Amino acid sequence: MQPAIDELKEKARAAKEASRRLAHLPTEVKNEALLNIAESLTSREGEVLDANRLDCEEAKAGGMGEAMLDRLLLTSARLQAMAQDVRTVASLPDPVGETFDARVLPNGLHIERRRVPLGVIGAIYESRPNVTVDISTLCLKSGNAVILRGGKEALRSNAALAKVIKEAAEAAGVPQGAVQFIESTERALVNHMLKMKETIDLIIPRGGEELVEMVTENATMPVLASGVGVCHTYVDSSADLEKAVAIAYNAKVQRPTVCNALDALLVHSDIAEHYLPLIAKEWAKAGVEMHCDERALKILFSNFKVASASEEDWGKEFLALIAAIKVVDSLDEALEHIERYGSGHSEAIITEDYSAAMRFLEEVDAACVYVNASTRFTDGGQFGLGAEVGISTQKFHARGPMGLKELTTYKWVIMGSGQVRP
Amino acid sequence: MQPAIDELKEKARAAKEASRRLAHLPTEVKNEALLNIAESLTSREGEVLDANRLDCEEAKAGGMGEAMLDRLLLTSARLQAMAQDVRTVASLPDPVGETFDARVLPNGLHIERRRVPLGVIGAIYESRPNVTVDISTLCLKSGNAVILRGGKEALRSNAALAKVIKEAAEAAGVPQGAVQFIESTERALVNHMLKMKETIDLIIPRGGEELVEMVTENATMPVLASGVGVCHTYVDSSADLEKAVAIAYNAKVQRPTVCNALDALLVHSDIAEHYLPLIAKEWAKAGVEMHCDERALKILFSNFKVASASEEDWGKEFLALIAAIKVVDSLDEALEHIERYGSGHSEAIITEDYSAAMRFLEEVDAACVYVNASTRFTDGGQFGLGAEVGISTQKFHARGPMGLKELTTYKWVIMGSGQVRP
Repeated sequence: MQPAIDELKEKARAAKEASRRLAHLPTEVKNEALLNIAESLTSREGEVLDANRLDCEEAKAGGMGEAMLDRLLLTSARLQAMAQDVRTVASLPDPVGETFDARVLPNGLHIERRRVPLGVIGAIYESRPNVTVDISTLCLKSGNAVILRGGKEALRSNAALAKVIKEAAEAAGVPQGAVQFIESTERALVNHMLKMKETIDLIIPRGGEELVEMVTENATMPVLASGVGVCHTYVDSSADLEKAVAIAYNAKVQRPTVCNALDALLVHSDIAEHYLPLIAKEWAKAGVEMHCDERALKILFSNFKVASASEEDWGKEFLALIAAIKVVDSLDEALEHIERYGSGHSEAIITEDYSAAMRFLEEVDAACVYVNASTRFTDGGQFGLGAEVGISTQKFHARGPMGLKELTTYKWVIMGSGQVRP
Repeated sequence: MQPAIDELKEKARAAKEASRRLAHLPTEVKNEALLNIAESLTSREGEVLDANRLDCEEAKAGGMGEAMLDRLLLTSARLQAMAQDVRTVASLPDPVGETFDARVLPNGLHIERRRVPLGVIGAIYESRPNVTVDISTLCLKSGNAVILRGGKEALRSNAALAKVIKEAAEAAGVPQGAVQFIESTERALVNHMLKMKETIDLIIPRGGEELVEMVTENATMPVLASGVGVCHTYVDSSADLEKAVAIAYNAKVQRPTVCNALDALLVHSDIAEHYLPLIAKEWAKAGVEMHCDERALKILFSNFKVASASEEDWGKEFLALIAAIKVVDSLDEALEHIERYGSGHSEAIITEDYSAAMRFLEEVDAACVYVNASTRFTDGGQFGLGAEVGISTQKFHARGPMGLKELTTYKWVIMGSGQVRP
């Protein structure tokens, strides 16, 4: 264990040192580094794919399931897509140096807030190797050094990616030490990392609920965590039913395994008899399993294969082609249900009623609130933030999709001409 | 103990419920409530001063020192000053509802971030009763409910102030439950409070280092903490010495017991022989105890009563009329010293050299960085934020003086017309 701890400490120290220079690195150098990385991801795909093949073979032999294997797998096309994401990050405005709340005080002091990097960011993640690229390029662009700790299953893939990133970045003038990859797979090492608040300014956990919880509970530094998404779409009595079908279909089916997918559909009783068969028909075609409350069941059971919802279906993140369905009698009932069962991620109302729309936006306490659109849009890329660090359901510091700005802090800059406090 | 826990739980529940209505309370109602509070602080000064007299008598009898007694003491003039601060908060713009980063995406989605309250804020503080007024009015203006847990010594004073605030606020239409004051003085209750992350969205500790540390280490929810201020003023070789004397004098003497007061003076060797006697003369008149490094000692010892600095003098927050003095040979040496010993609070350079000024602002990693001004300006009121919640030396969420905006979060509001994700 001690060699692993020594490795960690030495890499953290090097990252800290690099972070001081990174904070003042010109935007052009950072962008050049990102374009170099993008280029290398394709020009050096051989070494990455070779490493990934070994990871995949070992995982397969170890009995990893299809879905997990697919998350682990890298292909030429996937590397190209990753390179494209990196180019997008390069094209985004540099958050560092942005000045806000600037003004001249009556005593002549010029005061402003200036955006600066956080310093050193630690990332702890599970099997998807693309996180190595996502996090390190976002950290680089935002002027932060990064310490990467990936999952054991993807060790070779992550190490190969980190090597490509590090070399491409340094070739462009990024200080050595800015991108650190922890080679040791000792589990206990994570606990050490979580106690290094003197060196690591922020921890980003990316992975399953268990990992996020473990990190949140044990970290001594702030944590930027992606939260569970229990997402509702409420179809109001005044909804345009065609839109309501398209949106609920998209929210559930377009990519059911992610946090912003629909989990529960709430339908106003005035339109339930018309609307439910319409959406059920589409969902049934797509293979969506429907867990209905009593009233929804009554409407659907004769024409569709539906199940009865149990109490556990409310407030559950399915991450699969399953939807809970409930009939409500009012917007208020929908709001209460969402307050009780939502996880503060993404919530939508489908309505043509202006006041209902405004009330929903105002009263639902969630990271993202929608009118007449699919909750699937909750995403850094879709929101124009570039590649995202994750989607936060906490309220402190960052909420919803977290991009470059969320990896920074600010300092107050005060320029005087001899002012003293009276 | 159980009755105290029950009281806490019931008050927290009531605060949570009130917070939902508070979040949507019109600005005029909140301002009206604040003006009512200001009015009541003077019109009902009798009951507050009576309560305070009992606290002070008991504290005196218990052997409380002069400085602490002065912090506990309320007077008619102090209440008037508090009322004036509350009027200032009323006059500040309402942070809630502020919209930023609004834009229309290519697919027609209208997207924006909208500022919203955090919810329920817990405050844990020590003997100064003015915190009761400061925190509760800042919470009210920012749409948050508040649970106040003050120090035992100020119990009667705090309870009287909280009663005045609560009644004045409710008379203006603030929902019942928005301002909660915990009457029990059981010490263990704080630990319960720190575990209530489901109800309390943020904890603000205000008091000594020990309290802040205890809260930071045990709280399960985010903490907005004021940090220790180890503040340096560096007098560069090109400094205007007259300004440098006025600023260092002000930073040390104007109010030595606070976090933004000067702790260490760094002086460039080129001007040390001219400058040090000038500032030492003024400081000596004000009774400042000077702890000098070897070179400063050599310059000053024949004409001034100075002491030799020990290693503990560097990086120490004196909170008293004591200053450490060190001669450095370059801006770089000053920057290194500040990086090593500063606490990331407020740091100043006195210089007429433009490049030195810019380098200092860029390279010093602190909440507030100054050129040619006293670090004593680090203050919410001075920065135009109104009464402040504290001064943060952490980097996450808020840095430096924390005012209304720092008590809020935001949500993403997305208005569509049927968009689905392709």
